[in-house]
Amino acid sequence: MKRTLIKDIQAGKQVKIAGFVENLRNKSAMQFIVLRDITGKIQITVEKAKLPEIAKIIDSVTVESVLTVTGTAVKNDYVKLGGLEIIPDTIEVDSVSEAVLPIDKESGLDLRLDYRWLDLRDPAKAQIFKVQTALERYLVDWLTDHGFIKIHTPKITAISSEGGSEVFEIKNYFGTSAYLTQSPQLYKQMSMMAGFDRTFEIGECYRAESSFTSRHATEFTALDVEISHIDNHHDVMDIEEQLLTATFTKLHEQFGDLVAAPNVKFPRLTLQEVYRILREEKHYEMPKAALGDIDPDGERLIGEYAKEKYGSDFVFITDYPHAARAFYTMGDRSFDLIYKGVEITSGAQREHHYEQLKQNIIDKGIDPKHMQEYLEFFRYGAPTHGGFAIGLARLIARMLDLPTVKESCFIFRGPTRLKP
Amino acid sequence: MKRTLIKDIQAGKQVKIAGFVENLRNKSAMQFIVLRDITGKIQITVEKAKLPEIAKIIDSVTVESVLTVTGTAVKNDYVKLGGLEIIPDTIEVDSVSEAVLPIDKESGLDLRLDYRWLDLRDPAKAQIFKVQTALERYLVDWLTDHGFIKIHTPKITAISSEGGSEVFEIKNYFGTSAYLTQSPQLYKQMSMMAGFDRTFEIGECYRAESSFTSRHATEFTALDVEISHIDNHHDVMDIEEQLLTATFTKLHEQFGDLVAAPNVKFPRLTLQEVYRILREEKHYEMPKAALGDIDPDGERLIGEYAKEKYGSDFVFITDYPHAARAFYTMGDRSFDLIYKGVEITSGAQREHHYEQLKQNIIDKGIDPKHMQEYLEFFRYGAPTHGGFAIGLARLIARMLDLPTVKESCFIFRGPTRLKP
Repeated sequence: MKRTLIKDIQAGKQVKIAGFVENLRNKSAMQFIVLRDITGKIQITVEKAKLPEIAKIIDSVTVESVLTVTGTAVKNDYVKLGGLEIIPDTIEVDSVSEAVLPIDKESGLDLRLDYRWLDLRDPAKAQIFKVQTALERYLVDWLTDHGFIKIHTPKITAISSEGGSEVFEIKNYFGTSAYLTQSPQLYKQMSMMAGFDRTFEIGECYRAESSFTSRHATEFTALDVEISHIDNHHDVMDIEEQLLTATFTKLHEQFGDLVAAPNVKFPRLTLQEVYRILREEKHYEMPKAALGDIDPDGERLIGEYAKEKYGSDFVFITDYPHAARAFYTMGDRSFDLIYKGVEITSGAQREHHYEQLKQNIIDKGIDPKHMQEYLEFFRYGAPTHGGFAIGLARLIARMLDLPTVKESCFIFRGPTRLKP
Repeated sequence: MKRTLIKDIQAGKQVKIAGFVENLRNKSAMQFIVLRDITGKIQITVEKAKLPEIAKIIDSVTVESVLTVTGTAVKNDYVKLGGLEIIPDTIEVDSVSEAVLPIDKESGLDLRLDYRWLDLRDPAKAQIFKVQTALERYLVDWLTDHGFIKIHTPKITAISSEGGSEVFEIKNYFGTSAYLTQSPQLYKQMSMMAGFDRTFEIGECYRAESSFTSRHATEFTALDVEISHIDNHHDVMDIEEQLLTATFTKLHEQFGDLVAAPNVKFPRLTLQEVYRILREEKHYEMPKAALGDIDPDGERLIGEYAKEKYGSDFVFITDYPHAARAFYTMGDRSFDLIYKGVEITSGAQREHHYEQLKQNIIDKGIDPKHMQEYLEFFRYGAPTHGGFAIGLARLIARMLDLPTVKESCFIFRGPTRLKP
């Protein structure tokens, strides 16, 4: 007999269902099990006198055990879960859970992360990953429909640095020095030199940074996009805006109010305009240390402003001073995208002239010898190009108003978090 | 003016195009450039006397330089490339290539890989990645439409081994031991314990193996699939067969004869049947060392047999002895999928009983203490489950009859290959 998903059960039908025991009430004459699969929950009702064999099986079962049940779906208006219950013919115990679970609804985040697979049995948490699955599918569909080629750049590289931040080193790469890439940046630029014109990647990034914020991880998944033959960074923002608008609209169609569809153009404000707005409209003076960028409070306030003034959850901040950005940026042709008050993207037009790029590297205090392999990409014809990256866990956390990326990563990795 | 892709140029229209100089003929009265973008090639024709300014610009240009050109598309039956040429109004030189290129059509594989971005400018090679892009899109669409949740498992782990093969170790993970995962195996099983029911991942795998074959890499991208609530490994094969049949059919619709659509069921032969067929029909005696598995010659011959007897490019080999498979396999409920004579998948039902799994680990000579974190997944309810993995570069290499995965990886990584 073919398995039926719980959401598809219809009254009067014979079904085979399978899932976890959500709840178990063993009364003197009756037994009630709530069984949960990824699509829903249903009550299984056993009259002990009528089904003594099955009653005995249920006696051996604990909460969170896994069962496969055949039986008949029956209408019962007293049952909360869709007004349906299953009267079983057979119950097979696939696996018995230990009686005491190590976490419950009151457990703190750290303990919940230790037992992440139990934490994720909460349907509200599984929902996060249903949204993520749909998000990625719509991103890929839009990009593929618009002529983008998907690439998988290597995460193991001999290039030790792309701007001075800390990298993880591999201990045993066949006697040579090898590192984990911090992003696909250098190799997605290479795909432009390969003439691929428009490329994207959904892949892992590695940062050996000792950050303990709600938005940082040592390993995270990013969507990286790069396009050739652009006039400036506004062409890149156009693509990102179209991509996100199309994707969020599809998500809104699928998930309703859980995901708001953007219905206005994303405002674009230069960093200088943002400073003025924060000062004059929000009475917020940016700390000196943050000048050239904006700090989290500034992000939050400019997000607020964009919502009040333009009705937009999104706002581009453009034209950061070159000194504040990575060496591969072309002048001040850069931008960040703020979504609900948090930065989710950095993007820019890239420097494609060999000599200027080399000078940028020297200006950042990096020895160009360490970047020679990368510089080679630009010697045999290089199109104008630019792109952006979006951290998916950060995007989802904002979209669903989660307090931290630890809740939107399937399994979070941080400086003190390697488990499970 | 908006850029037009070369494939979309129509006679009589004003266009702006951009791309690489494929070919350049500078005659006494005329100049001819063939410009190439990711969609095609077009000739640009300059009568020097009529366009002296543009002629001067072209004098400064080398092959593989990048140009942006505006002009009029004109019908000319003498021109090979679609019977069209561009009479330019303006030419902008985005970047000049060095005059001597480090590789040409005669260069060996190793040198071509050193300059992979130049190697990939060959449209036949870019085509590989257009096929890969479509392949992944169709895989993701089918899986998403069939209720699969996409996960991103961590590639950095504290679990050092999943069966004794060599792993890369990270040198500087905040003072603790950390490794790169060889596959998402352990964590995709965890997603089953999370109740996600059906999951997939497209992600990187890392193998610290000193292999120098046409099918191995130290870093590669795999599609991993895992499903819950199965009766046995045939349920897993059913999913893989449906997935590949749907995907290849879509690819055939898009790329024509480049990708053959499967039009028969994939035959399923037990390993014992395969041994008998090889011996009796192919007069091939498997070397003793390969017993419990089949060797590359055996794979080739059984692929041949499946094509002759069933008209199928695919053949499942099932029921490998448990001792020949990884510890997480349930008994002999395992399979490989051979495609055009090469193994592209391993799959199986997994052992989901804690005690048996622990015994399997001990039987493989692994200290269960090292696997305790993984074993924990199975203590609080575990559904029956199974899955498979497909190496994408290996699949594409077979699909397009490429001699090695070095040609189907965007950038190949091997024991002696970290460049570029």
